[in-house]
Amino acid sequence: MTDTLNKTRLERGKRALAEIDGEAGQRVIDALADIAPDFATYLFEFPFGDIYSRPGLSHRDRELATIAALTAMGTAGPQLRIHIEAGLNVGLTREEITETLMQMAVYAGFPAALNGLFIAKEVFAAHPSA
Amino acid sequence: MTDTLNKTRLERGKRALAEIDGEAGQRVIDALADIAPDFATYLFEFPFGDIYSRPGLSHRDRELATIAALTAMGTAGPQLRIHIEAGLNVGLTREEITETLMQMAVYAGFPAALNGLFIAKEVFAAHPSA
Amino acid sequence: MTDTLNKTRLERGKRALAEIDGEAGQRVIDALADIAPDFATYLFEFPFGDIYSRPGLSHRDRELATIAALTAMGTAGPQLRIHIEAGLNVGLTREEITETLMQMAVYAGFPAALNGLFIAKEVFAAHPSA
Amino acid sequence: MTDTLNKTRLERGKRALAEIDGEAGQRVIDALADIAPDFATYLFEFPFGDIYSRPGLSHRDRELATIAALTAMGTAGPQLRIHIEAGLNVGLTREEITETLMQMAVYAGFPAALNGLFIAKEVFAAHPSA
Amino acid sequence: MTDTLNKTRLERGKRALAEIDGEAGQRVIDALADIAPDFATYLFEFPFGDIYSRPGLSHRDRELATIAALTAMGTAGPQLRIHIEAGLNVGLTREEITETLMQMAVYAGFPAALNGLFIAKEVFAAHPSA
Amino acid sequence: MTDTLNKTRLERGKRALAEIDGEAGQRVIDALADIAPDFATYLFEFPFGDIYSRPGLSHRDRELATIAALTAMGTAGPQLRIHIEAGLNVGLTREEITETLMQMAVYAGFPAALNGLFIAKEVFAAHPSA
Repeated sequence: MTDTLNKTRLERGKRALAEIDGEAGQRVIDALADIAPDFATYLFEFPFGDIYSRPGLSHRDRELATIAALTAMGTAGPQLRIHIEAGLNVGLTREEITETLMQMAVYAGFPAALNGLFIAKEVFAAHPSA
Repeated sequence: MTDTLNKTRLERGKRALAEIDGEAGQRVIDALADIAPDFATYLFEFPFGDIYSRPGLSHRDRELATIAALTAMGTAGPQLRIHIEAGLNVGLTREEITETLMQMAVYAGFPAALNGLFIAKEVFAAHPSA
Repeated sequence: MTDTLNKTRLERGKRALAEIDGEAGQRVIDALADIAPDFATYLFEFPFGDIYSRPGLSHRDRELATIAALTAMGTAGPQLRIHIEAGLNVGLTREEITETLMQMAVYAGFPAALNGLFIAKEVFAAHPSA
Repeated sequence: MTDTLNKTRLERGKRALAEIDGEAGQRVIDALADIAPDFATYLFEFPFGDIYSRPGLSHRDRELATIAALTAMGTAGPQLRIHIEAGLNVGLTREEITETLMQMAVYAGFPAALNGLFIAKEVFAAHPSA
Repeated sequence: MTDTLNKTRLERGKRALAEIDGEAGQRVIDALADIAPDFATYLFEFPFGDIYSRPGLSHRDRELATIAALTAMGTAGPQLRIHIEAGLNVGLTREEITETLMQMAVYAGFPAALNGLFIAKEVFAAHPSA
Repeated sequence: MTDTLNKTRLERGKRALAEIDGEAGQRVIDALADIAPDFATYLFEFPFGDIYSRPGLSHRDRELATIAALTAMGTAGPQLRIHIEAGLNVGLTREEITETLMQMAVYAGFPAALNGLFIAKEVFAAHPSA
């Protein structure tokens, strides 16, 4: 009985992650199975079950914010790749993503923007129809 | 004659900065006058005359991206303050800004989100009608 | 009924935060009340209800890890202050904290270590009996 | 006619980038062609047409500063590689570059310095006559 | 004669590095031989001869702090790998290392924790008996 | 007798710090006395007795590199202030320092450069004759 709410939260997170990140998100979850399975649960629950499930900002806007942040930080290449894919999944256009990446040159420097653009180039090449 | 285009670019940047950042942006420009006046020109020209003047992303979306990035970086408190004000100026709601700041806990940790939220709290208190 | 588990998790987080961070943690929670009350809930639930409540690492070891990380990052001064206090609360000695801060010079540079040491100096001065 | 000044600025930036970064810089520009060609223009114009074309600091000193900064940041490996090459192009000796990289251990930690030194090792091996 | 103390310090550092980092540490030292041999000396002397040889914190605690810091910084993947191995060498369990890495999600974000966990996964797979 | 070399190294570091950083460096050393006096010794020995005493790069070039790095990192305001003063002490002109700070906009973003420029503005105002 005490599992009901967290199951709801976990299920809500799983649905949100599947909807937003698709297969790429699932691969991260799978890769955690033999090292830190509880961390996969936390990843479903807090970022997706809590934050992305909040009504105050669209998934499209949340991915825009995440792409900007990860590009500016410059320490999260694999995650930036997944969130550029996720951005395309939830309705950001390639142009909007590219504009966001270029803008990061202003706030985090040209290397951060360049590294982001080259990741986007790979994602776009792998998603010809997006 | 060769000054025409850059004057256009500079003027476009000045208009964009005034529209987006308002008085706070002008105070930054003024503070540069006796240390690096050319840097004030670059600040008008590249971030505002070039990037923010591009049509591919709305000012509202650009401020959302900037607020996310500066919060995640955690090294640009004075600029985050200005861009939270700018976000309000170009149509972001307080709720959308707060959601963006909270989301940064996922990507840059709880301290980054907390520091951003406490800056927003001060900005919101100083802009009671926003 | 669906609130049972999360209430448990929230209550567990509240107890853990009170035990570890004491009054300083509560002040952070209070300061969130009028800007992002849900973020206070998340702060109880994920860091404290989930992570700090896990059995695999002692509170003393968790605070050692947190003090090291926040010092190395260099972007979380207010949180480092709270966690130095928390470290004292859960059994780290002043010497152990100072050793950890000095060690960060190796991994994050002398400025990061110095800034951490000067925060510790203030905390130790305010806790004469610790 | 309004294109005259920016053409001057763009041409000045292209000459500066060719002189400083040589082929490596051109490869970055080429790689941007199908994802963000305007960003290639900005890269010519602001860093090279504006900043590196300013008279107040030699190209040699500018590359010294850039090598230090990119090493300390630790998030710009591909760019650090290009700027170590650029440093050699504009007159920095291998010894001066190595000294700069070692010095970063003091300010950004031993890992940052080590990662910079191993990039320099690869660049030096590929430029036997430098 | 004036070499006596630094020889002591250097020897003490060499012993500490061999004990803590084992072969992985030696490979770093070897790789420095043709680019910056003095930096290998500094690496023995300051981090290992000075810091790790201090009595105020156990090697186990020092590695816990280092693993936390490098994971949170996110810019030192090769060094994090070596220090996860070192942690196993000086008595940290796999569970304690995994707990430390997961905890970094709170302070530096989920991407930092994930990147750390995937490095640990590789180290653990290569050390089946640890 | 075994103290001879390290005394030499310590004395060399004290002389270098006094020459480069002047009173500001001494104030840092003094502030460490009651929290981590050994760290003051390390600060004399490694950065100043080892690195700054190496012949391969002038003090002027070393300060240029340090000013660039600290500005780009954005987490070391108090140290950047001291090193801008140190730069003036060892022969950098105000113009060279300002050029270095402006250049960091390219590599670490406009906020990093702005924050550096405003620190320089304060240092220059306090050193009217420099």
